[in-house]
Amino acid sequence: MGNEELVIERADLLEVTEPSAAEDVNWIKPFEFLRLQPRTALVILNQSIGAINLLKIWGNTELHVCADGGANQLYDYFQDPEARAQHIPQFIVGDFDSLRTDVKHYYSDRGAVVVEQQTQYSSDFMKAALVVRLYFLLDSVRQSLYDEIDTYNGLAEMAEKAQASNSEETTRIYYLGGIGGRFDQTVQSISQMYSMNESTPYIQQFFITNDDIIFLAKKGKNYVSYGNKNQFHTSTLPCCGLLPMGNRPVVLNSYGLKYDVENWHSLIGGKVSSSNSVAGISGFYIDTSDALVVNIEIEHGCL
Amino acid sequence: MGNEELVIERADLLEVTEPSAAEDVNWIKPFEFLRLQPRTALVILNQSIGAINLLKIWGNTELHVCADGGANQLYDYFQDPEARAQHIPQFIVGDFDSLRTDVKHYYSDRGAVVVEQQTQYSSDFMKAALVVRLYFLLDSVRQSLYDEIDTYNGLAEMAEKAQASNSEETTRIYYLGGIGGRFDQTVQSISQMYSMNESTPYIQQFFITNDDIIFLAKKGKNYVSYGNKNQFHTSTLPCCGLLPMGNRPVVLNSYGLKYDVENWHSLIGGKVSSSNSVAGISGFYIDTSDALVVNIEIEHGCL
Repeated sequence: MGNEELVIERADLLEVTEPSAAEDVNWIKPFEFLRLQPRTALVILNQSIGAINLLKIWGNTELHVCADGGANQLYDYFQDPEARAQHIPQFIVGDFDSLRTDVKHYYSDRGAVVVEQQTQYSSDFMKAALVVRLYFLLDSVRQSLYDEIDTYNGLAEMAEKAQASNSEETTRIYYLGGIGGRFDQTVQSISQMYSMNESTPYIQQFFITNDDIIFLAKKGKNYVSYGNKNQFHTSTLPCCGLLPMGNRPVVLNSYGLKYDVENWHSLIGGKVSSSNSVAGISGFYIDTSDALVVNIEIEHGCL
Repeated sequence: MGNEELVIERADLLEVTEPSAAEDVNWIKPFEFLRLQPRTALVILNQSIGAINLLKIWGNTELHVCADGGANQLYDYFQDPEARAQHIPQFIVGDFDSLRTDVKHYYSDRGAVVVEQQTQYSSDFMKAALVVRLYFLLDSVRQSLYDEIDTYNGLAEMAEKAQASNSEETTRIYYLGGIGGRFDQTVQSISQMYSMNESTPYIQQFFITNDDIIFLAKKGKNYVSYGNKNQFHTSTLPCCGLLPMGNRPVVLNSYGLKYDVENWHSLIGGKVSSSNSVAGISGFYIDTSDALVVNIEIEHGCL
């Protein structure tokens, strides 16, 4: 590989070898929500669930948390009272400026733990992510989530005490909402994804929207795998993008995209790889000089 | 103003004096689409128009351009054939990989100029912005938009020839679509807004989504005015955000927001001002060390 900036057009179906165990690669599996996996959480934020295949994601995740008005969205998603009653989140967390009283009672009557957190130094999004982190940290910590928690900022205090724990196995959070509504919320979500990538790098985060799944590739070499790309999309190659949103230009190398790049300098206001697509049959590589936002198109109807 | 980083909570209705003619301030009027103005264009991109008040924006803009499949969206927006026939764009431009044949014929039969541009070095978005730029540059240039144009990259060649022109009065483009769908397209739209802010700074760009209006504040001092904020929103203070997407952290000062900032260091992964709101009765100031994305909430039902 020279120093020249290149774009290389690939065949639609490219054989890409997965990394060996010896290689230092960040392996990302965005489509694990298509089957039941341990240490996975669904976080529902306050935005319409729309065409997203909620039942599939719900059924394949271990923990379900609603952030404040996210509980309203879950409630309203179901027309059928029986289906609604079968989908009770374990936790509802937030300052409750948007949670409806009827919804709060409906879920707490059916076993949801309602964790009020009034601090304004953290968003509902961050509070929900904290619940997930504490839930999967240690059994003893998990247990304390069911005790009385200080309603101002008790979760963050619990997290501080639990810092010493080394139970930091890979954990996956799938967020519904947070991206695609009001633009300040979209950018805040991306910002918090970058922030958590620094503070809790073992937590992989995925935003699932009506159109795509959005996640971070870490600085260095990443392998994004999906078993077989036919599983998440049918008619055409799924679109994707490499999106440098981390405060500085990046240099990118990829292998397994329709338009692979080499030594490619990418920045906002300059070159951004969008409307690219996934060519690797079961995965692709991205090497990036800084953490990078990646999205892959989803057709929910095909899941 | 010291060097300390501050957040200052304001009253809900704050008197903010508009800048004097002598001051070097970039004056932004995002809500000019609420009344008929010269040198304004509506560009419709290929994304569902949804709840956006299209008729209002259409009626108040001088030029209407569809980017490729944006024409399908315009066509499908109207149920009523009579209303559809009353809203014919002057131009449809793109490589036409998504424009439906029936839609193309419908509009060209009714006077729309269909400009095929096959180059893949420019997006449909950029091609539409080029049409707007050429249309408002000089009468002679505008006239040539109705002549035969080379179907590969003729628009860009025309623009190159017209560089010498100094008819660069403030021009406003309102985009429908481009933000809120697939995330690579969202980020590409933002990237192109930053890019055009460099190449054609006299063109002010606004993305109108279902939820908000999104635009750039330039490096330095900006005044964002809206006549009277009651005109675009009723019940609560309109939300807004200051979003540092230009490849580096910024230092911000504001006056006229619910949570004003002073010497505030903002970056993705760090502090981002979101869920802020507009407090200035008719406008607010932002001073930024680099171009900055700003959004203000809109309730289309209230327009």
